[in-house]
Amino acid sequence: MEVPKSHPRYESLKKREILLDFYEKGIVTISGLISQGRGEAFDYLLGEKSQDFALEAEKAALEKLTQSNRPVISVNGNVAALAGEEIVRFAKKYNITVEANIFYWSKERMKKIVSYFESIGLHVLGLNQDAQIPGLESDRGKCEKDGIFTADTVLIPLEDGDRAEALKRMGKFVITIDLNPLSRTSKFGDITIVDEVQRAFTNLTNFKKEDYSGKVSSFKNERNAARVVTFIGERMATMNEWPES
Amino acid sequence: MEVPKSHPRYESLKKREILLDFYEKGIVTISGLISQGRGEAFDYLLGEKSQDFALEAEKAALEKLTQSNRPVISVNGNVAALAGEEIVRFAKKYNITVEANIFYWSKERMKKIVSYFESIGLHVLGLNQDAQIPGLESDRGKCEKDGIFTADTVLIPLEDGDRAEALKRMGKFVITIDLNPLSRTSKFGDITIVDEVQRAFTNLTNFKKEDYSGKVSSFKNERNAARVVTFIGERMATMNEWPES
Repeated sequence: MEVPKSHPRYESLKKREILLDFYEKGIVTISGLISQGRGEAFDYLLGEKSQDFALEAEKAALEKLTQSNRPVISVNGNVAALAGEEIVRFAKKYNITVEANIFYWSKERMKKIVSYFESIGLHVLGLNQDAQIPGLESDRGKCEKDGIFTADTVLIPLEDGDRAEALKRMGKFVITIDLNPLSRTSKFGDITIVDEVQRAFTNLTNFKKEDYSGKVSSFKNERNAARVVTFIGERMATMNEWPES
Repeated sequence: MEVPKSHPRYESLKKREILLDFYEKGIVTISGLISQGRGEAFDYLLGEKSQDFALEAEKAALEKLTQSNRPVISVNGNVAALAGEEIVRFAKKYNITVEANIFYWSKERMKKIVSYFESIGLHVLGLNQDAQIPGLESDRGKCEKDGIFTADTVLIPLEDGDRAEALKRMGKFVITIDLNPLSRTSKFGDITIVDEVQRAFTNLTNFKKEDYSGKVSSFKNERNAARVVTFIGERMATMNEWPES
């Protein structure tokens, strides 16, 4: 079924098709499909665009990444499907290490994710997991010593809350991308980006130096995240075609 | 993976497992899994319980169903998975016809849904589709003359917006169950229930006559639906652990 470009929810439906395609490829899990649905609902409430609070967090995130000694981007199946190419462009532009990490661990799926990134032009870590994030079950905590384990800053799009917390406990600077501003992952962010991952990485790649310079020092994460919740509440009220009660 | 009962989101995670099981059985589609994710997000915002506005709409809906000459409940794959047994109990208690209707039509899946209901004790319509809802594409508009086609009142849980609209255009009294108060389906309801389907059918079955008597005449659907949106906005603000901006 082809979705016409004129459809009001074209982008969202197109993304759903891509997820299904990556499910067939064995990169996205069944559980990942349900997660995508949850994301769709929050993106709908956000207006399916990068709002001002998202752009502000993304600018601060980019400056922080450029200032870090060992920044690493963590990718899973949904992230590969939704923003693989955008991540390749971004990682190459700033020479940032990317490492595959998945919630429902399987060697086969790890290989598929790594191969997918190779096929679109980027070598990513993940097949040589020789370190363990403290405080997580064995499979959930696997990572590479040269990657996430020794990173000073981690960018974790669509990450599990437990892992976000564990990375923070390790003392890392944590940058999250998640559509739910109230999720545990969002709350563990030192910089919390509430935006769709493809849009987020497109923005990160397109910013010029003057866009992001000096943003880290003035960025107040808690205040910015609070704006998201206010925005969604106000937007729901404007979307409400039901008369005021 | 067993979900411990103590988990704060036990009910939600349990439902996810059931959906996966019905996906394996060929009753729920891939697209239905993504829809479930969207539902999860809205139910999270609703506090994962039947709020007062839901109970009010459910009481009015029950009285309307008992007053109708030919009420019909429409069921699809997700509805069967989430609330099959509760629907059987409800339909038997009030002797209401149930008809299977699916968005991504396939004879095989129709058969599986009908068989599933037979296996849990209820004969449902759907395999003898001899009528067509006007204004819908061929597959999407199929239904039974003795069921939805000649119903005066239709109860349509988790229904597609186009079909909700087409049923309303046929002059039927439309009762919707949908977790998104702003969905097209919700807007086409004469009575709009914003609740999770399993909870909704449990409530419908448990109400006593004195609970619902006289509720139709005093029920104001638009005002009730507007309360839902206000509730979600206010609840998000209370859930917000981010400091006020």
